[in-house]
Amino acid sequence: MSERSARLLPAERRAQLLSVTETLFSDRPYNEIGIADVARAAGITQGLLYHYFPGKEALFAAIIEAHAADLLARALPERDAPIHVQFEQGVKGYVDYVQAHRASYFNLFRGPASSEPFFQRIADRTRQAIIDHIVSVMGLSDLAIPATRISLRGYIGYVENAILDWLERDNVPRATLERMIFAVIVAALRIGLEADDDVPLTAADLAAFEADFKRHFALP
Amino acid sequence: MSERSARLLPAERRAQLLSVTETLFSDRPYNEIGIADVARAAGITQGLLYHYFPGKEALFAAIIEAHAADLLARALPERDAPIHVQFEQGVKGYVDYVQAHRASYFNLFRGPASSEPFFQRIADRTRQAIIDHIVSVMGLSDLAIPATRISLRGYIGYVENAILDWLERDNVPRATLERMIFAVIVAALRIGLEADDDVPLTAADLAAFEADFKRHFALP
Repeated sequence: MSERSARLLPAERRAQLLSVTETLFSDRPYNEIGIADVARAAGITQGLLYHYFPGKEALFAAIIEAHAADLLARALPERDAPIHVQFEQGVKGYVDYVQAHRASYFNLFRGPASSEPFFQRIADRTRQAIIDHIVSVMGLSDLAIPATRISLRGYIGYVENAILDWLERDNVPRATLERMIFAVIVAALRIGLEADDDVPLTAADLAAFEADFKRHFALP
Repeated sequence: MSERSARLLPAERRAQLLSVTETLFSDRPYNEIGIADVARAAGITQGLLYHYFPGKEALFAAIIEAHAADLLARALPERDAPIHVQFEQGVKGYVDYVQAHRASYFNLFRGPASSEPFFQRIADRTRQAIIDHIVSVMGLSDLAIPATRISLRGYIGYVENAILDWLERDNVPRATLERMIFAVIVAALRIGLEADDDVPLTAADLAAFEADFKRHFALP
């Protein structure tokens, strides 16, 4: 154990362990990283590591929780802005986050960690928070809107998969990706809202919503 | 080993092993099924099973290959139909397939098998075949269309995730799900095609394509 490592306060040690694991994780998949690797990289004993995290799953869950909180902080904008601006801030915040954490985003959604129950739980909760936020922004939180919720779940699938493909190809401007996302969210929302009986919007209201949205984003 | 089992021809035995594994897989996740379970359920020795499949991965890969081929046979319609009819047949074929293999679809896309490299490889190849088919139906196979391809990859993500949520909720008519999918494919295609310089379609061509498509499916 190095002298520098030994001097850390508990909160600093915890942060150091998360940071060290994150670094390992950006090079190697989840199933190839062991507690021993993390302890070695942090310059501490495995015993001390277990004092902070009861196991590998807890360590990775803490990292993914932190990522999810960071992502949500960027993807869920302030509610006092006009509705189109909220969508704009949310999508740009999500893509900002992905660009800043490219390797982790790949590892999480494509790597072996992606089928771990703890990851699926955190990922699903994060997706649900984004869907709930969109529903709330639209003023529909108290309504039964199963079709809209299915369509929004599909929309999240569009975003995750388009972004992974966009990162891999690396030959399409970010502004183009964002236009795609805006075009799909408005189509997904309108078709879902149209199908849900409880939604107090007429076909004309929905057409006006779509037209306003497209005008704001200069969509065809 | 039962007398009945012992009498099977090699092709019959192979089919029996796939069928037995499929049945086990509809109740239990991939990581909880061992070669011993399959051999026991099939009434044969593990040694004989290894004669047909070198291991668990090969056994599951054969099942997933068969599913993928079945899915593609249904989701890729004949090319002599009008373009809207091809989209309609493709989406209906995909949903037919999912409804007929509900448990397997869930297990594959949500369960522990979903992060296995062999599954990801087959799933990605299947997604790519669907994307290539759509590009071919549109007559764009020879063009560089990165934005359209990213948008179609997102569309596949929409379909997979909306369908999983639709199966779980079980309270939205299938026709509504299909309308959502049609609404999103046309939005995803138009916004992608608009961004790709090599696409020989004007803004007016794209608007006409969208209008025709929406008219065919009575979309708003």
